Amino acid sequence: MSGQRQPRMNDDLKALRDRLGTVSDLSSAANVLSWDQETYMPDGATAARAQQLATLRRLAHELFTAEETAVLLDRLSGTAGQSDDTTPEGALVRVTRRDFERERRIPSNLVAALAQESALAQQAWKKARHSNAHGSFASHLERLLDLTVQKAEAIGFDEHPYDALLDEYEPGMRTREVKAVFGDLRERLVPLVSQIAEGSQVDDGFLHRPYERSTQWEFGLAVLRDVGYDFERGRQDVSAHPFTTSFAISDVRITTRLDENFFPAGFFASLHEAGHALYEQGIDPEFDRTPLADGTSLGIHESQSRLWENMVGRSRPFWDHYFPRLRTVFPDALSDVDVEDFYRALNRVEPSLIRVEADEVTYNLHIMLRFEIELLLIEGGVSVPELPDVWNAKMEECMGLLPDSDAHGVLQDVHWSFAAFGYFPTYTLGNLMSAQLFNQAQHDVPNLTAQIAGGRFEELLRWLRRNVHRHGRARSAHEIMESTTGSTLSAEPWLAYVREKWGEIYDF
Amino acid sequence: MSGQRQPRMNDDLKALRDRLGTVSDLSSAANVLSWDQETYMPDGATAARAQQLATLRRLAHELFTAEETAVLLDRLSGTAGQSDDTTPEGALVRVTRRDFERERRIPSNLVAALAQESALAQQAWKKARHSNAHGSFASHLERLLDLTVQKAEAIGFDEHPYDALLDEYEPGMRTREVKAVFGDLRERLVPLVSQIAEGSQVDDGFLHRPYERSTQWEFGLAVLRDVGYDFERGRQDVSAHPFTTSFAISDVRITTRLDENFFPAGFFASLHEAGHALYEQGIDPEFDRTPLADGTSLGIHESQSRLWENMVGRSRPFWDHYFPRLRTVFPDALSDVDVEDFYRALNRVEPSLIRVEADEVTYNLHIMLRFEIELLLIEGGVSVPELPDVWNAKMEECMGLLPDSDAHGVLQDVHWSFAAFGYFPTYTLGNLMSAQLFNQAQHDVPNLTAQIAGGRFEELLRWLRRNVHRHGRARSAHEIMESTTGSTLSAEPWLAYVREKWGEIYDF
Repeated sequence: MSGQRQPRMNDDLKALRDRLGTVSDLSSAANVLSWDQETYMPDGATAARAQQLATLRRLAHELFTAEETAVLLDRLSGTAGQSDDTTPEGALVRVTRRDFERERRIPSNLVAALAQESALAQQAWKKARHSNAHGSFASHLERLLDLTVQKAEAIGFDEHPYDALLDEYEPGMRTREVKAVFGDLRERLVPLVSQIAEGSQVDDGFLHRPYERSTQWEFGLAVLRDVGYDFERGRQDVSAHPFTTSFAISDVRITTRLDENFFPAGFFASLHEAGHALYEQGIDPEFDRTPLADGTSLGIHESQSRLWENMVGRSRPFWDHYFPRLRTVFPDALSDVDVEDFYRALNRVEPSLIRVEADEVTYNLHIMLRFEIELLLIEGGVSVPELPDVWNAKMEECMGLLPDSDAHGVLQDVHWSFAAFGYFPTYTLGNLMSAQLFNQAQHDVPNLTAQIAGGRFEELLRWLRRNVHRHGRARSAHEIMESTTGSTLSAEPWLAYVREKWGEIYDF
Repeated sequence: MSGQRQPRMNDDLKALRDRLGTVSDLSSAANVLSWDQETYMPDGATAARAQQLATLRRLAHELFTAEETAVLLDRLSGTAGQSDDTTPEGALVRVTRRDFERERRIPSNLVAALAQESALAQQAWKKARHSNAHGSFASHLERLLDLTVQKAEAIGFDEHPYDALLDEYEPGMRTREVKAVFGDLRERLVPLVSQIAEGSQVDDGFLHRPYERSTQWEFGLAVLRDVGYDFERGRQDVSAHPFTTSFAISDVRITTRLDENFFPAGFFASLHEAGHALYEQGIDPEFDRTPLADGTSLGIHESQSRLWENMVGRSRPFWDHYFPRLRTVFPDALSDVDVEDFYRALNRVEPSLIRVEADEVTYNLHIMLRFEIELLLIEGGVSVPELPDVWNAKMEECMGLLPDSDAHGVLQDVHWSFAAFGYFPTYTLGNLMSAQLFNQAQHDVPNLTAQIAGGRFEELLRWLRRNVHRHGRARSAHEIMESTTGSTLSAEPWLAYVREKWGEIYDF
C-alpha cells in the first residue's frame, strides 16, 4: 500500500502546483496592471482598470478557495504529514493551508469590491493630495474602511479585529504584541530624541541645492547595480509613491521619485526599494508560481529595505566610497562639502511632518501615530471626517509640529487608499529587525565595514540570500530571526545602534 | 406571456454581458502584459510572462466557450430574434455567437500553447533578427506553424485551410476572393510601377540627415494631438515594432520607433498607429467590455491607419501646414529645402526590401509576396528551413532586389512570431478601402482639402466617427463600405489615386 502512496502524492502535488500556478499568474497579472496604473496608465482609464483588477483578484480568489484546493491540501497533509514540514513540499502545504484558511472566509464579492474600490480610491487620493482636500477622498476612505471591517469580521479574531488585518502582513503577530513593543520602544526613544535635540547642530543646507534629475537617475542606477540589483530581472521607473512589485522571481521592479532640490529623497527611495527587490529576486527559483515565492512577512521585508537604505546607505564607510564620485557629478552642489559634512547632513535628526522624509530616529514616532489612529478607526473611536483633526492633534503631541495642510498631514501616505490597514506597524518591526540582522551580518562576515568602504557588497548579499532571501515564505519571520540571530524580535539592538551612531554625530 | 419575456431577456442579457465583461477583462489584462513585454519588460522575465499570457488566454477562452454562454445565446436568439439584428443587443448576440462558434472549436490547451509559444517566439525573433540568424528562430516558427495548422483544422473550412485563419482577421473574406483582388491589382499595378521608374527622379537625401530624437518625439506628439488622439485615454511609448493596443475604450495606446537618420520612419509610424487608435477610441462607449468593442475587421482597421498616414499625412496640403514648423525645429536638416521638395521626397517611389519602409505604390507588392508564402507554408509547399531561400527568390522576382541578410528579408516582420498567419492580406485590403473612404469623405465634407491645409481635422474625424468608428463590430466591413461609400471593396479608387498623385510627382 505504501508503494501506491508516493505516485498519488506526486499527482496531488502536481495538481496543487498547477492550481497555485494559475492563481499566481492571475495575481501577477493584477500586479502588472497595478504597476502600470502607478507608472504609465492614462488618467481616463481609471474606471476600466478598477474593473479589470476586480475581475483578476476575484478569479484568483475563487480558484484558490475552491473545494478542490481543500481536497488536495487534505490529501497532501495526510500523506506528507506535518512531520515533514521542513521539506519544500511540506512548507508549501503548510503555507498554502494557512492562506487557504484565511482566504476562504472572505467572500469573493468582498475581494472584488476591495480591489475595485482601491483602484478608484488611489486615483481619488492622488487628486485629493494634489488639491489638498481630504473631503474629496473621505467618501472613498469610508467605503474602504467599511469593507475592511467586513473583511476583519469575515476572517475572525480572538482578541481584536485589528489582529485579522495585521496577520495578513505580519503572520502570527498580535495587536497586543505590537502595543507592547511600541510602548517599550517609545519609552526609551523619547529621551534619546530629547538628548539629540540638545546636542550640537548639523547643517544640511547643501542637500537642498539643485541636483540635476538625470544625473541623480544615473548615479542611482550605478549604485543599484553595485549592490546587486539584477536589471535583467527588473527595472526602475518613476511613480508618485516609490514601491517594489513582483510579477515573478524573474521580474521584480522598483520605482522611485526624484526631487531636484533634495538629493536624498530619490537616492534613498531607490536604495530602499532595491533592498525589497533584492529579497524577492533572491527567493529560491523553485518556489516560483507558488505562495512560497513572496516575502515571509512585511517586517522581514522592511528589514531588508532598511538594512540597505540605513545600515548600509546612510553609513560613513558607504559614503567614504561614493562621496568622491557624487561630488564629481554634482560639483556645483558639493564642491565646498566634505564627506564628514555630507554623512552628518544625511543623518540630521529633526522632528518632521512627513514620514518618508523623516530621519531614522524620529521615523518610528510617525509609525506609532499611524498605528494608534488605525486602531481608533477600526474600533470606531474616530470617524473619517474627524480624521484630519485627530491626525493634527496627535502630530502636535508627538512631534510638536502642526501640519499646515492635509497634504502634509493625513493625506501624505498612499496606504489607506488601497485599504492596507495593519501595514504601517511592520515598518517599525522591520527597523528593529534590520538592526538585529545587520549586527549578525557584521559578526558573520569578516571585514564587512571595510568591504562597504570599498563598494563591495557581494558577501553581504550572499549572507542575506542564505539566511533570509532564498527561504521565501518557507520559513516564518520568527524562524528566520531565531535561526539567523539566535534571538527573537527585540528593540535593544536598534536602540544601541541609535545611541552609538547619533551619540557620535550629536556628541552626547 | 409576452409580459414575462422582457424581464427574462433582460436577465439573460445582463448575465451574458457579465460573462463577456469578465472575458474582456482577462483579454485586456493579457493585452497589458503583451504591451509591457514589447515596451518595458526586462529580458529575464520572458518565460514567466509566456506562462502568464498562456494562463490568461486559456481562462478567457474557457469562460467564453463554456456551455453557459451557449445557453444564454440560445435563449437570447429565441427572444430577441435575428429580426432585431439592427439593435445593439441584436448585434451583440450576433457577433458573440459568431465568435462563440469559432472559438468553441479550438481546444483550450491549443489556445494556451499558442499564447505561450508566441510569447517565447517573439523574444526569439527579436534575438534572431538582431543577430541576423533565421536558424535560431526556425524551431519556434515550426512549432507555431504546426499549432496554427492544428487551429485551422479545429476551426474547419470549406475551401482552403487559410480561410479559417483569414476569417479571424477579415471576417467573411475567403482566400479565393483575396487571390482575385490581388491578381487584378497586381496586373494593373506593375505597369504603373514601371511608368514611375521611367519618370523624373526625386531626391530624398535630406530626409536622411540627422533629426534629433527628442525633437522628433515632441513634433510627433503635437501632430497626434492635432489629429484628435486623446492622451487622456492613451499614450505613446517606444517599441521595436510599432503597434496599437487597447485595454478599454478609455485606454488605447500606441508605440513608435524613431530613426535619428530618417525622419519619416518615426513620424509616419506614429501617425499610422494614431489612425488605428482613433478608431478604437471612437467606438461607442456602450460597447465597452463586450465583443463589439473592437475593430470590425483588420481591413477596416488598416483603412483608418492608412487614411491618416497616407491620404492625410503624405498629402501636399498637410505639409503646407506643418512644413514651416518642421523646418523651424530642424533648421540644420531643412533650411535648404522647400515644401515641394519635401512633399516629393516623402512620396518617392523605389523598389525596396523592407515593407514598413516601402512607399505607398510598391507597398502592396510586399504584401502579395507574404500572402503567397503564407499559402505555401499552410499548404505545406514550403518548409521552414527553406523559407529564407524562397523569400529571397520571390523578392528578387517581384522587386528585382536580393536581401543581403535574413534581418532585411524573411525576419523583418514580427507577425509570424505571434502566429498571425492570415493577417498580412488585410494590409492591402485596408489600403484599397482607405482610398474608397477618403474619396467619400472628400465628397461629404466640404473644403476638406482646405481644412487639412489649415491643420484642422475635426470634421474629418467626426465623419469617420459617424460612419466607421462608433459602430465597432456592430457593422461588418462589408456593411460599412456599402453604407458609407455605396459600393463594395474595389481596387479602382486606390489605382486612380496612385495615377493622379504619382502622375503629377513623376510627370507621366
